[in-house]
Amino acid sequence: MNKVAVIMGSKSDLPVMQDAIDILKGFDIEVEVDIVSAHRTPEKLFDFSKNAHERGIKVIIAGAGGAAHLPGMVASLSPLPVIGVPVKSSNSIDGWDSVLSILQMPGGVPVATVALNGAKNAGILAAQIIGSSDTCVLDKIKVYKEGLKAKVMESAKDLK
Amino acid sequence: MNKVAVIMGSKSDLPVMQDAIDILKGFDIEVEVDIVSAHRTPEKLFDFSKNAHERGIKVIIAGAGGAAHLPGMVASLSPLPVIGVPVKSSNSIDGWDSVLSILQMPGGVPVATVALNGAKNAGILAAQIIGSSDTCVLDKIKVYKEGLKAKVMESAKDLK
Amino acid sequence: MNKVAVIMGSKSDLPVMQDAIDILKGFDIEVEVDIVSAHRTPEKLFDFSKNAHERGIKVIIAGAGGAAHLPGMVASLSPLPVIGVPVKSSNSIDGWDSVLSILQMPGGVPVATVALNGAKNAGILAAQIIGSSDTCVLDKIKVYKEGLKAKVMESAKDLK
Amino acid sequence: MNKVAVIMGSKSDLPVMQDAIDILKGFDIEVEVDIVSAHRTPEKLFDFSKNAHERGIKVIIAGAGGAAHLPGMVASLSPLPVIGVPVKSSNSIDGWDSVLSILQMPGGVPVATVALNGAKNAGILAAQIIGSSDTCVLDKIKVYKEGLKAKVMESAKDLK
Amino acid sequence: MNKVAVIMGSKSDLPVMQDAIDILKGFDIEVEVDIVSAHRTPEKLFDFSKNAHERGIKVIIAGAGGAAHLPGMVASLSPLPVIGVPVKSSNSIDGWDSVLSILQMPGGVPVATVALNGAKNAGILAAQIIGSSDTCVLDKIKVYKEGLKAKVMESAKDLK
Amino acid sequence: MNKVAVIMGSKSDLPVMQDAIDILKGFDIEVEVDIVSAHRTPEKLFDFSKNAHERGIKVIIAGAGGAAHLPGMVASLSPLPVIGVPVKSSNSIDGWDSVLSILQMPGGVPVATVALNGAKNAGILAAQIIGSSDTCVLDKIKVYKEGLKAKVMESAKDLK
Amino acid sequence: MNKVAVIMGSKSDLPVMQDAIDILKGFDIEVEVDIVSAHRTPEKLFDFSKNAHERGIKVIIAGAGGAAHLPGMVASLSPLPVIGVPVKSSNSIDGWDSVLSILQMPGGVPVATVALNGAKNAGILAAQIIGSSDTCVLDKIKVYKEGLKAKVMESAKDLK
Amino acid sequence: MNKVAVIMGSKSDLPVMQDAIDILKGFDIEVEVDIVSAHRTPEKLFDFSKNAHERGIKVIIAGAGGAAHLPGMVASLSPLPVIGVPVKSSNSIDGWDSVLSILQMPGGVPVATVALNGAKNAGILAAQIIGSSDTCVLDKIKVYKEGLKAKVMESAKDLK
Repeated sequence: MNKVAVIMGSKSDLPVMQDAIDILKGFDIEVEVDIVSAHRTPEKLFDFSKNAHERGIKVIIAGAGGAAHLPGMVASLSPLPVIGVPVKSSNSIDGWDSVLSILQMPGGVPVATVALNGAKNAGILAAQIIGSSDTCVLDKIKVYKEGLKAKVMESAKDLK
Repeated sequence: MNKVAVIMGSKSDLPVMQDAIDILKGFDIEVEVDIVSAHRTPEKLFDFSKNAHERGIKVIIAGAGGAAHLPGMVASLSPLPVIGVPVKSSNSIDGWDSVLSILQMPGGVPVATVALNGAKNAGILAAQIIGSSDTCVLDKIKVYKEGLKAKVMESAKDLK
Repeated sequence: MNKVAVIMGSKSDLPVMQDAIDILKGFDIEVEVDIVSAHRTPEKLFDFSKNAHERGIKVIIAGAGGAAHLPGMVASLSPLPVIGVPVKSSNSIDGWDSVLSILQMPGGVPVATVALNGAKNAGILAAQIIGSSDTCVLDKIKVYKEGLKAKVMESAKDLK
Repeated sequence: MNKVAVIMGSKSDLPVMQDAIDILKGFDIEVEVDIVSAHRTPEKLFDFSKNAHERGIKVIIAGAGGAAHLPGMVASLSPLPVIGVPVKSSNSIDGWDSVLSILQMPGGVPVATVALNGAKNAGILAAQIIGSSDTCVLDKIKVYKEGLKAKVMESAKDLK
Repeated sequence: MNKVAVIMGSKSDLPVMQDAIDILKGFDIEVEVDIVSAHRTPEKLFDFSKNAHERGIKVIIAGAGGAAHLPGMVASLSPLPVIGVPVKSSNSIDGWDSVLSILQMPGGVPVATVALNGAKNAGILAAQIIGSSDTCVLDKIKVYKEGLKAKVMESAKDLK
Repeated sequence: MNKVAVIMGSKSDLPVMQDAIDILKGFDIEVEVDIVSAHRTPEKLFDFSKNAHERGIKVIIAGAGGAAHLPGMVASLSPLPVIGVPVKSSNSIDGWDSVLSILQMPGGVPVATVALNGAKNAGILAAQIIGSSDTCVLDKIKVYKEGLKAKVMESAKDLK
Repeated sequence: MNKVAVIMGSKSDLPVMQDAIDILKGFDIEVEVDIVSAHRTPEKLFDFSKNAHERGIKVIIAGAGGAAHLPGMVASLSPLPVIGVPVKSSNSIDGWDSVLSILQMPGGVPVATVALNGAKNAGILAAQIIGSSDTCVLDKIKVYKEGLKAKVMESAKDLK
Repeated sequence: MNKVAVIMGSKSDLPVMQDAIDILKGFDIEVEVDIVSAHRTPEKLFDFSKNAHERGIKVIIAGAGGAAHLPGMVASLSPLPVIGVPVKSSNSIDGWDSVLSILQMPGGVPVATVALNGAKNAGILAAQIIGSSDTCVLDKIKVYKEGLKAKVMESAKDLK
């Protein structure tokens, strides 16, 4: 069973993070969604991160805004690949704070960072990670990419 | 067979990218190294990216500096997970150009971005991606993380 | 025959890129418009770029947002002068990502970058490039510049 | 007994953090120094932070570079005031990453942030925090400030 | 008696600074509120800062926008711990001006800086400073932190 | 006759701008080199810009640092295409000042901006502009691009 | 007779620049207002700047947005003190372009730069320049400053 | 008598600020030099600023680094025109902190800001301010500008 966890620091991140959930479901990948705050529920962060790989989760997607410590702390505690989504929250300094807090991890503890508010890409990346060892998912990725192409070709035709 | 490709836009990126190669070898993961320039060898970029997944490569690590298009273009052409390493080249504007050129990919085509010059983390992330479906590699990741901890504990002891 | 190609990464760039089309038409320069996505239609990118100079196109204007790879990849594949228009898309980090992704090209592969959302100037620059060997177009540029001046003089008069 | 803990993410932060230790000792405040890495020793982070206030520590100073999560995570786990020192490490993006990762904490979990590499000020601030309820330390702060003034007056005299 | 002063450079900062006042009142800490402009009422700034510690104030919270000199000047004149709140005013350059004007204090004169518009955290930090020597307030901080956790746990339950 | 003017704001810009001169000579394009300061020799700026197109110059390359007004002012006065090279001078704020002063031209007056210190690319772009109407130069561009490719292929071979 | 010229690059800058006009009139200083575009009316720029000091103008205030060359070019051509107002125009990159284009003038040609959209302060500064040799205006400045203070004191009273 | 005060926050600013002193002496303008620290000698700041205009000083030049409050606080206290020089000190964040702390003054209290480390231009600007009412100094400014031009013309000749 392939399962991806999508967690976020606050309920207010859900509108952004929903894109990851939707795209994964579109790939028929099971998704577990939760709110885990590095700063307000550190014990839950520990429990979640320490055990995720033992209950079938293959990839963790973590979204957070501001001084976004969630993705990095999960990466600290879990052996799984962790994808970080910088969320542009209110009072963020144009998103730079969440981007840099997630991206600039020290040597030894990587976070696979995607674009600001790029939850959709986080979902695709999780699917690609699963697809790298699961040809069925890999094939779905290929089909998805053909779909992207088709949409551009169509909008090009519309233009003319 | 698990294989990771480590490519870079120019030979001058090798001192940075070597960290990825070394860490992967430390995890006993086969590495294929090449120079592929998005801007100077676009045909090679196409050939490489279109076929990588068909010859046993599971993850592609691509490093580039300045207006770094290599990771994103590989991600455009390959269904595999692509890890981008922003390289701080001379004439770069403090590294911001390579960071943003790699990170801010449009919806549909993710690049797993690591820190500026973070090739070591790119290697670890590639191992984690393989480890998410290969318990033998996953165990090595766990051992590696214990090693990180041990080193900090030791330096803390030295301090006292 | 002088022809300028105006391409963009997505249909959503059209409201910005229309300024380039309009100004070129105002100079009686033939315009070819298309949607070419570096990330979603890489094959079309190749075909377009490899052949543009063989069917009468003199200058290529390419607009894109975020990690904007379109102008640079066209410049990689075509011998023609390529003008890049950084488009400020949603989720862009204030436009810095598209500006730096287009501007900071490596030695050997220039892109003539204009201001953020500066499609109008891209059109004028294309006309100036044609005008540098076509005195008829050069004269239109001179007239256009006189028009700019006249408008300022008039608004200065209004002020008083 | 007044005690201040000075912790840092890596031994390489010591040259910067030493300033905090020195200034606190100059105020006759007891200092406990340790290396605690949020990313490499998360369990130690938990133990340290959960118990610090129970063994006489009044203020915690935490220094870290890059995606600096140490100060924020300590603040998440301890009820004590936490002072964060952004350290400008190699591969940092000019220090912006550590500044923003420490400063931009979410509502509910403050970190008292000082200037980039500002460990000396972190030490003084810790003394002021103790001084706010300990007039003996408050008096030392006043004397220290007089000393700052005297040095400027002297260098002004030298100039003339 | 524990008292915290909350001052701000202009009445227009009040909507932001109110968060500090409210949270302190929630901790049953007495608050003194005033408008003190470093640039328009420098004499008041002097009087306020020189005497605050002599009438029972333990911590000073100062909020200001743009070239925000208020927190730093208060810190220059008072031996008390000063917490600076960068306020994102109109005509600010995205808040960077107030953040850097408050954060980057020279060695010898610290300001405990919180996030952009982070007045709530300034209030909590002030309570923590008082709590570091007052177990009654420290206990309230612990309760407050439990409350943060409870809210996240509840919103996580709602999600499922 | 095809001629390109390479001008710069100060003699100290020559080490950077020499790359443009060299590459143009390599394409057998005649180069005219001069120092023209927008701020110190405004009359010369006027004379140069007003007349350049009347003595066989097809493209103007202008390099300047700091608040770099030279390229934009030449573009204001000449109907020719103007290529701007942001030069990273001492006391520049990391090159951002020259980049933005050259790039962000208002509608009506474009400057074709290249990368920071990108004089080599300015030379190539000038050649491409000439090449867009001169098949002999266009052919040289094609050969040059083949050379770029060959060098990468060779360094890739070296690597293996 | 004391006269201040207030010029701007475009009529669209007037809403911002009006603040300078109003404050100067409040100081009973004669104001001459004009639109002078460095990029669209370079000849007018020359005429204006060369002669301003010969018809009673003591200070020139110049406002412009984007790659704002007007203040610097006036400073190049006039011996008078020139005050530059960076205007945050649409398509500006958050105002950074106009700020840096005006502030970072090369050695020899200063522009007295005020805050983004800071036309009011430009007017006050012009009055202070006149006041430095005209005690009548100097007295008005003192009264103005007392007024600033009074307003703060009043709003502080309102608060209580 | 025309006199200019050149003050700075620390003796370490002298190498930068010396340029202002030298250029003013070159214009035969009397210079008074002092060290006044806003943060360490606030009383001296008050005394200096309150009285400067009463002992013949016409313009104040103030240089400072980091969170540079000196120029703004002098402007708060003195009716004279104040020129601020952002100094790029060690531990500065690339100079952005001092630039923004000096430039972004609130409405009512202007500081005439010059480029980072632009003390020479501060000196010239002070001379221009004096020159606006003193034709003898104005004439020296004109001669100085002719000298700038001559040097460029000469270096242009050297180039050929």
